[in-house]
Amino acid sequence: MADDLGYADLGVYGSNEIQTPNLDQLADGGIILTDGYVSAPYCGPSRAGFMTGRYQQRHGFWCNPTNWPVDRSQGLDLEEETIADVLRRGGYRTCAIGKWHLGSAEAFHPINRGFDEYFGFLGGGHHYFPMQYEENMKRWARDHSDTDTPFLYNYGSPLEVSGIPIPPQEGYLTDLLTDYSIGFMKRASGTPFFLYIAYNAPHVPLEAPEETIEKYSSINDKKRRTYAAMVDNLDMNMGRIVEYLRESGEFDNTLIVFISDNGGKPQNGGFNGELRGHKGQVYEGGVRVPFIWSWPNVLPAGEIVTTPISSLDLLPTFAVAAGVNPAGKPLDGINVLPVLLGESGSASHARLFWERGGQRGIRQGEWKATLWRERSNWQLFNLTDDVGEQNDLAKSNPEQLEEMKALYEQWIGQFEGPRWSDPKY
Amino acid sequence: MADDLGYADLGVYGSNEIQTPNLDQLADGGIILTDGYVSAPYCGPSRAGFMTGRYQQRHGFWCNPTNWPVDRSQGLDLEEETIADVLRRGGYRTCAIGKWHLGSAEAFHPINRGFDEYFGFLGGGHHYFPMQYEENMKRWARDHSDTDTPFLYNYGSPLEVSGIPIPPQEGYLTDLLTDYSIGFMKRASGTPFFLYIAYNAPHVPLEAPEETIEKYSSINDKKRRTYAAMVDNLDMNMGRIVEYLRESGEFDNTLIVFISDNGGKPQNGGFNGELRGHKGQVYEGGVRVPFIWSWPNVLPAGEIVTTPISSLDLLPTFAVAAGVNPAGKPLDGINVLPVLLGESGSASHARLFWERGGQRGIRQGEWKATLWRERSNWQLFNLTDDVGEQNDLAKSNPEQLEEMKALYEQWIGQFEGPRWSDPKY
Amino acid sequence: MADDLGYADLGVYGSNEIQTPNLDQLADGGIILTDGYVSAPYCGPSRAGFMTGRYQQRHGFWCNPTNWPVDRSQGLDLEEETIADVLRRGGYRTCAIGKWHLGSAEAFHPINRGFDEYFGFLGGGHHYFPMQYEENMKRWARDHSDTDTPFLYNYGSPLEVSGIPIPPQEGYLTDLLTDYSIGFMKRASGTPFFLYIAYNAPHVPLEAPEETIEKYSSINDKKRRTYAAMVDNLDMNMGRIVEYLRESGEFDNTLIVFISDNGGKPQNGGFNGELRGHKGQVYEGGVRVPFIWSWPNVLPAGEIVTTPISSLDLLPTFAVAAGVNPAGKPLDGINVLPVLLGESGSASHARLFWERGGQRGIRQGEWKATLWRERSNWQLFNLTDDVGEQNDLAKSNPEQLEEMKALYEQWIGQFEGPRWSDPKY
Repeated sequence: MADDLGYADLGVYGSNEIQTPNLDQLADGGIILTDGYVSAPYCGPSRAGFMTGRYQQRHGFWCNPTNWPVDRSQGLDLEEETIADVLRRGGYRTCAIGKWHLGSAEAFHPINRGFDEYFGFLGGGHHYFPMQYEENMKRWARDHSDTDTPFLYNYGSPLEVSGIPIPPQEGYLTDLLTDYSIGFMKRASGTPFFLYIAYNAPHVPLEAPEETIEKYSSINDKKRRTYAAMVDNLDMNMGRIVEYLRESGEFDNTLIVFISDNGGKPQNGGFNGELRGHKGQVYEGGVRVPFIWSWPNVLPAGEIVTTPISSLDLLPTFAVAAGVNPAGKPLDGINVLPVLLGESGSASHARLFWERGGQRGIRQGEWKATLWRERSNWQLFNLTDDVGEQNDLAKSNPEQLEEMKALYEQWIGQFEGPRWSDPKY
Repeated sequence: MADDLGYADLGVYGSNEIQTPNLDQLADGGIILTDGYVSAPYCGPSRAGFMTGRYQQRHGFWCNPTNWPVDRSQGLDLEEETIADVLRRGGYRTCAIGKWHLGSAEAFHPINRGFDEYFGFLGGGHHYFPMQYEENMKRWARDHSDTDTPFLYNYGSPLEVSGIPIPPQEGYLTDLLTDYSIGFMKRASGTPFFLYIAYNAPHVPLEAPEETIEKYSSINDKKRRTYAAMVDNLDMNMGRIVEYLRESGEFDNTLIVFISDNGGKPQNGGFNGELRGHKGQVYEGGVRVPFIWSWPNVLPAGEIVTTPISSLDLLPTFAVAAGVNPAGKPLDGINVLPVLLGESGSASHARLFWERGGQRGIRQGEWKATLWRERSNWQLFNLTDDVGEQNDLAKSNPEQLEEMKALYEQWIGQFEGPRWSDPKY
Repeated sequence: MADDLGYADLGVYGSNEIQTPNLDQLADGGIILTDGYVSAPYCGPSRAGFMTGRYQQRHGFWCNPTNWPVDRSQGLDLEEETIADVLRRGGYRTCAIGKWHLGSAEAFHPINRGFDEYFGFLGGGHHYFPMQYEENMKRWARDHSDTDTPFLYNYGSPLEVSGIPIPPQEGYLTDLLTDYSIGFMKRASGTPFFLYIAYNAPHVPLEAPEETIEKYSSINDKKRRTYAAMVDNLDMNMGRIVEYLRESGEFDNTLIVFISDNGGKPQNGGFNGELRGHKGQVYEGGVRVPFIWSWPNVLPAGEIVTTPISSLDLLPTFAVAAGVNPAGKPLDGINVLPVLLGESGSASHARLFWERGGQRGIRQGEWKATLWRERSNWQLFNLTDDVGEQNDLAKSNPEQLEEMKALYEQWIGQFEGPRWSDPKY
């Protein structure tokens, strides 16, 4: 899982600017989704949906949780079964890497949510050069001493291994996360394993190895240049993962899914191509993401699938692939292996819903309806003709819109509302 | 809230030695209490009383709690409602700053006791120059390696922001606590807020900025000189708080209360003027404190109030000012706004009680009875004639004393006793 | 309690190689056990047996627990009463020092298991020069960056005082643990106290003061040389403990027991003399340990006791010595004061049992039966003639063996099995 990666920032998704040969090759040997979605246009809620296979609104996780470890009220509902719970129950060794963002108190720690081990940081982001953390935090405090509250900052807190803070390491964070991932795969060799690598790249702060930034010296905008280098490095690290699996002989029988947690944010370097909107919005640019599947022994190679598929589908699909029955509450996701295998009559989502801070979105077949803020007017787009959501057909198709609005009301009416609101800082 | 500030250490309370122009000005624009009290002559219990509006003996908090974070038995009873709980329920954003000393385990953390955020240290004291913490701890360990247990020391542990330890900062702690306080007020701008600033100054260790110490070079005693500088700096920082509120236009409608958590300790530089005794004792010098109120829109300016008022009264008074009803257990404090407003027939305390390690104290009108240690004789003083508690009238007024002793027995007889005793170190 | 000290590594137990004058002298003034046992051949389970006076299999503690603090499932069963619980109830001040290894989550912390205070590290081992911890961790991460998972390492985490991490200290860990121990005894002066010093020496990593290593320059093997220096230093520190007690006048009325948590590990420098096997095995070399008792006011001096005595006996014996009744579940240990005092007809263990990862061992009188791995054949030895377990008498004494096997089945059949398995790293 990449973080804030734009829909159009991989070669295989059309980028001419950023070189991603490893992910391109992974896609060439597997399946690309054109209509792959996440269940929220930003970090925490999107991950909460993926992790449970259920709309995160079902369990109160509408907003980002606080990063403060003593807050025991904000985190992934303890009564939810996670994808790691399911797979561990099925005999899989489980490991989470990188960004968590599903609660910082002990009860919400990955180790207590189905993962045998964890290497990363519990909050929503992190600096990338560990040897510079302390310096970064001091600079941040100094820079904010007049204009804002100093000290409120956790992007520089120590990395941890399963609850134990570790001293600063040499190197670049994306590389280090990959190091640990490969170490886990080595240790798990011979056992089924589930490895959830939640890279924080290319999320801000925009920091990349100098030599990689130089590869993109032709990009004038400094943010975009650094962002490109972060994606380039991420791709290189995905290549390391694949290479390890090839060498260990496990690649052909390993299901790899690559996804972003939400759309790109142009002001931080991301690019969503022709899609409207960006991270934080329910327009396609906020919720449609790069979504690649690879499993040579099972899935076809070089396919493009246009059926809408959601990150909510990962839990049930992985469960089927692993031969385990989820034991939690009813799922919103579905097993999409039949769709990926091109089986006729495969089930797919009749509709997908989004909500974020009053924004509303619903996709039903080729139709997309959006309410971009409370007390605004609903818009209606036909994604087949207009994937960029430019032509509002609300007035010409009132019945279609009314039907979708009614479905939306029915959907959102089930939930008790957010258990907390977004932290202010 | 200042820490161990003596009754006579502000200009407005008669000090010729220490310059406190900002607090003097605050008092000039508001009300000074001559007979302001706290509910205990030392840190933890006094704060436990203030925080709940109830004699801390009601909830077992007779003694200082341990500073050890794993001890889940010593801290402010989780069934008590705090002043922050009350005000947060009333829509106030809440923030605690500085010294906590109400329990170090997670359950007792300010964040879990009604405060939205916290910047400070959970224990009973702290070094003042964060960049020197590690050095201080090592020196302490070295200095105590022969004669005592090294390592037992938490005055140099990292500061934290709501549970996250932060790296050492440049600067002086009282300044840093004020920086954060102002930051909070900025962020809370436009919302009602409750800010509890618990400065540890001028509590030991005696450490102050060099340039401030130089202002007091005429004071020969090194401890007193440093103490004076600490109070001077505290006053300067209170000036910064007031200045911010003036600039933001909120000063006139903000209720500010300045208080010390107990009397001064002469061996650590404090001075209680003509009062007998000091921190740790139930004589007036231990429990009578500087106590200033400012609220230009509501309270008169330049008044001196002699009615006994207790720190226990802050919770109910703030609740009335905020229009919230406390929802916890019956309070010992009362709303003192009528007294402060000079309303005729205002309720006031018929008596106030103190206990500390076998010492007993009771004030009833102009009378004060004390038992300065177990198995000693009760003393009786008339505070109107003898605020210094020099003339024991026990023998000449046996009936008065007996009545007060009986009331004391009745008071203390309600309680189950201390849930823990003072830590040894 | 020493860690991984071999049966034959003290002068008084026959070592010509390592100088241990202080422990030799302690033994000369008290009692040496020739047949002293622990209840498991490795660290965590052995400590879990000692701590509860019950076979650790009764409470699920068959294997080492994880060192990860967030794991709340692995640790000493919270329903077990510890030796510290018992003695604290009897008015003893209690302190644990050094290695814990009985669970790393807060609930399992020494402070929550009967100890008033704690100085040490919660995991299973630690580096010995605190000023080098960070360097050690970085070197470890670097050395393992290619071949294994970096970061999985807690031997360099900060030491803590009752939950508070402390900054790196100058000095050698065994000395520092002794410093704190003496500090505790000073503070506890005048009160009965129970001090559990769990030195990690001479457990790996093999690190000792240079000047002590030089004393053993005649030992060619580098590991053995360093190990010898670690034991030498441990002996010197036991001397410091005894010296303090002599100076304070408490030595004669203090019961001191010295023991190792299991047998030595030759590949890490330990030596078990003529005993077969080593740490990790149920042969005598894994479970028979140095075991010394000193209590001048009560116990005889210079005695050698050959009756089998177990570490399980410490809890009930200490309870009797302190005049407290254990209040927990039925004990496997017994009060051995009568045996130590040479009282005729004293109760002793009819048999002792061991289990470790499929290995089985039982001692009954002079007989020892072992199954050294699952699906192997049982062996039978006569320890009187053959303490080295060389001559298997299984074929010649089938009835004796069958009786012992049946008793073993009965013993192990009571238990529910391990609650967790040994951590992989």
